[in-house]
Amino acid sequence: MLKFDETGLLNSVKGALALRQEIEKIVDGICEKGYDAIYYMGIGGTYASALQAIFHIKQNSALPAYVENAGQFITAGNQRITDKSVIIISSVTGSTEEMVLTVKKLKEIGAKTIGFIDKADAELAKLVDYEIAYPANEQLKFFMVADRFMYNHGDFKQYERYYKELDEYLPADLVEVEKKADDFGKAFAAKHHDDSIHYFIGAGYQWGAIYSYAMCYWEEQHWIRTKSVHAAEFFHGTLEIVDRDTPVTVYICEDKERPLAERVAKFLPRVCANYTVIDTKDYPLHISDEFRGYVSHLVMHAINNRIDAHIEKINCHPMEIRRYYRQLEY
Amino acid sequence: MLKFDETGLLNSVKGALALRQEIEKIVDGICEKGYDAIYYMGIGGTYASALQAIFHIKQNSALPAYVENAGQFITAGNQRITDKSVIIISSVTGSTEEMVLTVKKLKEIGAKTIGFIDKADAELAKLVDYEIAYPANEQLKFFMVADRFMYNHGDFKQYERYYKELDEYLPADLVEVEKKADDFGKAFAAKHHDDSIHYFIGAGYQWGAIYSYAMCYWEEQHWIRTKSVHAAEFFHGTLEIVDRDTPVTVYICEDKERPLAERVAKFLPRVCANYTVIDTKDYPLHISDEFRGYVSHLVMHAINNRIDAHIEKINCHPMEIRRYYRQLEY
Repeated sequence: MLKFDETGLLNSVKGALALRQEIEKIVDGICEKGYDAIYYMGIGGTYASALQAIFHIKQNSALPAYVENAGQFITAGNQRITDKSVIIISSVTGSTEEMVLTVKKLKEIGAKTIGFIDKADAELAKLVDYEIAYPANEQLKFFMVADRFMYNHGDFKQYERYYKELDEYLPADLVEVEKKADDFGKAFAAKHHDDSIHYFIGAGYQWGAIYSYAMCYWEEQHWIRTKSVHAAEFFHGTLEIVDRDTPVTVYICEDKERPLAERVAKFLPRVCANYTVIDTKDYPLHISDEFRGYVSHLVMHAINNRIDAHIEKINCHPMEIRRYYRQLEY
Repeated sequence: MLKFDETGLLNSVKGALALRQEIEKIVDGICEKGYDAIYYMGIGGTYASALQAIFHIKQNSALPAYVENAGQFITAGNQRITDKSVIIISSVTGSTEEMVLTVKKLKEIGAKTIGFIDKADAELAKLVDYEIAYPANEQLKFFMVADRFMYNHGDFKQYERYYKELDEYLPADLVEVEKKADDFGKAFAAKHHDDSIHYFIGAGYQWGAIYSYAMCYWEEQHWIRTKSVHAAEFFHGTLEIVDRDTPVTVYICEDKERPLAERVAKFLPRVCANYTVIDTKDYPLHISDEFRGYVSHLVMHAINNRIDAHIEKINCHPMEIRRYYRQLEY
């Protein structure tokens, strides 16, 4: 299989899950002291991951947890953030300009920051109050923090049972999803690698993932134009520009917002002959049905990995290269 | 001037501003009884207006005020909304399916709803706790509610002075903006009426307005493809698909997020020869500089009205027609 390191993938997810003890210690300590609100802050891809974590909390709890865009925070601010607030951030390089400014501003306010900074010696890693350095698996790391906060708040009683399943099955399950998705990914890439624009529609846990996939993968890494539209919003404008040949992909989530995505999937065949429906439910997992929604964005990501590997090959366009990002000063 | 009813426009804005006494009475009554949070709820265009109202509150106050998508609320819910919460909605027809379900669900929770339902005899108008029927001017109506809540919370001390200026100058100022923008709108329409896709970038008060303009005007009414991207997010993906010929329009706002939009405007000329910068600051108003930001999305809307009138004419595509919306059941 193209660009597929089974052992590497297995170990990567296993290692991320193994961070749980460290995360629990940090979150339990914060909960003991008390806090007024939780903010996931990011920009671009990390903002998208934050959207997913916040949706997860909103589905399962009344905790005051919010998403905040780092670029907006460093310019416009947020008067609700106090020295009792907890902020969760993530950065692969540890040098993203907006995130460095964000954490400096948060330090002035006195808010507590938990940072998943992959490079332990980066500037950001030294600035945050609690640093956890482990590569990739951003959503999983964000969700582990969210789950512990909810658990301590009495809102996520399934915590132990859920993580027992994840520890046991998630790494191998995600490997199997990639294997099962490879033929589909190849066919999808063959059909869409040269689209002039591609529409990605989704809801629930998958909305943040779709927002990220459209922008950080197709636009940034494949240089293919896309628009991501939340399924709830699709019928209030975007539908009018869909015709027979418009490439539209709908992801069907496995949570309470599933009917929103299903509605789009049901509508499309009537007006479009170039649509794709990706339902994560079609991919078997050893994880209980009640928990599938919580990881359906990871299943989606595994499917997308296969699409990406094939687009990269067909287009002779290495995903590492950037036209402008970190090539120019701006 | 094409499709321009000066007296109608003047009276429309004047009439909206004259709702203030009625709005104050409602908000003051709610504040006396107390509330735990404010939610602006909408879908499509009304969701976009909600984004603007929430940005306004966030800029000026620490009030617990949030935006909620009605489609998401009726499927996924929001456990933080209680019988002490205040919800603000708007609907032109009063029959939007998602909004009817939303208000019914809110009634079960016991939350108080303020509705700007333009049709006083529509189902929604009868369902809300406080109904104000007046056509158009959605943002202005939303902002008047926001301002009164902030004022009562001690966060908007400039309230009386600000509204004195609006009452005196806003209606005529917006008329003058349209007049001044007409030549620009005509040239812009001539250049972009047939774009295969158009990118709209903006921040601050204008972000919600851009989100709406791209989706509810160009997509829904002109059937032209667009993508709206927040200026803070532009450098984290979208920039890579911009090349010499990509049509990109940046709106420059007049609030704390102005540097985010300016950064995009500064970057574009280096990589793109088909960009436009629209700075609302270029349009004179009789309103004080300190208040211009609060109405800059209305200035932007006035400019866009001129673009729309000319695109409609050039494309021979009446803005009232819809391909699918309310033509099909879905």
